[in-house]
Amino acid sequence: MAGEKGVLLLDFWVSPFGQRVRIALAEKGVDYEFKEQDLINKSEHLLKSNPVYKKIPVLLHEGKSICESLIIVQYIDEVWSNKAPLLPAEPLARANARFWADFIDNKVYECGTRLWKLNGEEQEAAKQEFIEIFKLLEGELGDKKFFGGETFGFLDLALTPFVAWFYAYETFAKFSMEEECPKIVAWGNRCMERESVSKTLSDPNKIYEFILFLKKKFGAEY
Amino acid sequence: MAGEKGVLLLDFWVSPFGQRVRIALAEKGVDYEFKEQDLINKSEHLLKSNPVYKKIPVLLHEGKSICESLIIVQYIDEVWSNKAPLLPAEPLARANARFWADFIDNKVYECGTRLWKLNGEEQEAAKQEFIEIFKLLEGELGDKKFFGGETFGFLDLALTPFVAWFYAYETFAKFSMEEECPKIVAWGNRCMERESVSKTLSDPNKIYEFILFLKKKFGAEY
Repeated sequence: MAGEKGVLLLDFWVSPFGQRVRIALAEKGVDYEFKEQDLINKSEHLLKSNPVYKKIPVLLHEGKSICESLIIVQYIDEVWSNKAPLLPAEPLARANARFWADFIDNKVYECGTRLWKLNGEEQEAAKQEFIEIFKLLEGELGDKKFFGGETFGFLDLALTPFVAWFYAYETFAKFSMEEECPKIVAWGNRCMERESVSKTLSDPNKIYEFILFLKKKFGAEY
Repeated sequence: MAGEKGVLLLDFWVSPFGQRVRIALAEKGVDYEFKEQDLINKSEHLLKSNPVYKKIPVLLHEGKSICESLIIVQYIDEVWSNKAPLLPAEPLARANARFWADFIDNKVYECGTRLWKLNGEEQEAAKQEFIEIFKLLEGELGDKKFFGGETFGFLDLALTPFVAWFYAYETFAKFSMEEECPKIVAWGNRCMERESVSKTLSDPNKIYEFILFLKKKFGAEY
């Protein structure tokens, strides 16, 4: 096992991608330094640590940088393998968890952003798409406690930061996740019972205010 | 180790994504059945096996389906772990391989398609972008024999099927990968010395003809 010295996270408070990494570190009980990043005037540190995408989150461990949230979480799971396994043990279950985490990466944030950027018919289309995405995820969850079964794991951690965004999505696009996908909402509540999640997720009101700030600041671009 | 009985690949001959899986199975020495798919009139088998994306490749192993090429390759590496390891052993090297494989997934095919779909300034922009993508990959390769060092592995396998597309890309967009990225071309030649690769990759002339066929068949859509 690698030493826990020298773990540093370059992140941005409200990022659901950064929050995945924070939840993983909390689950593993790893102490780390958190360095909030300015995403408008990006630091030399961020640009050097992630020269390809120039994005947070970046995990620096003993001076080496690891980028892309799901890759970071797998790294954390492999380095601190003696506690709180995140990916399942069986290859088929691992492939399944990776498939759905990748699905979430491809779909949720992008579609969610359309819910508050767009209006009228385009927003309505995004809303239908958003609900369909979560109905697929609800199908995968089934009647299980967590996505992997009884234990909180990789896929729960990949999705749960977005639950805190539901309030803003619902308010802008006028719908109710509780009505559309009650099992997902109940699952989100179960995740929130874990300290690793409840201490990490942003206050839904703060996310809503953050989006209002983005809309005002960037105006027509949004 | 899982038995090798009941390994079936739903694939399409020219797919660089499917070819990743074929190379992985060849490296591991796994016998499997290959079922060529009609991508216009998709089979019930494909639709049932990959209901989310309805795309090839799909690996069926003992009746269970695994989708998305890089996820399938990791599955193969985990199930047939006793031979020809594909991902490196160290977490940092694994994260690095996953990062660049994901980069290839996000960039290469999409940009390559613009090289033959577009004309004029748009094609020129795609060409510059394509060369930049491969210059980044060339930087990652450095003076190593393969991306992971001395041994052919995950990242080599993720990228090498696209080498057979260079001829078509170069012909449509009028440039030379040999001139722009000589180290990548030399690396591609080293990959082709492996039977797993040379027996899998499509003939560059056939790829060129396939693209001509697509352009003719779909007309303005392309």
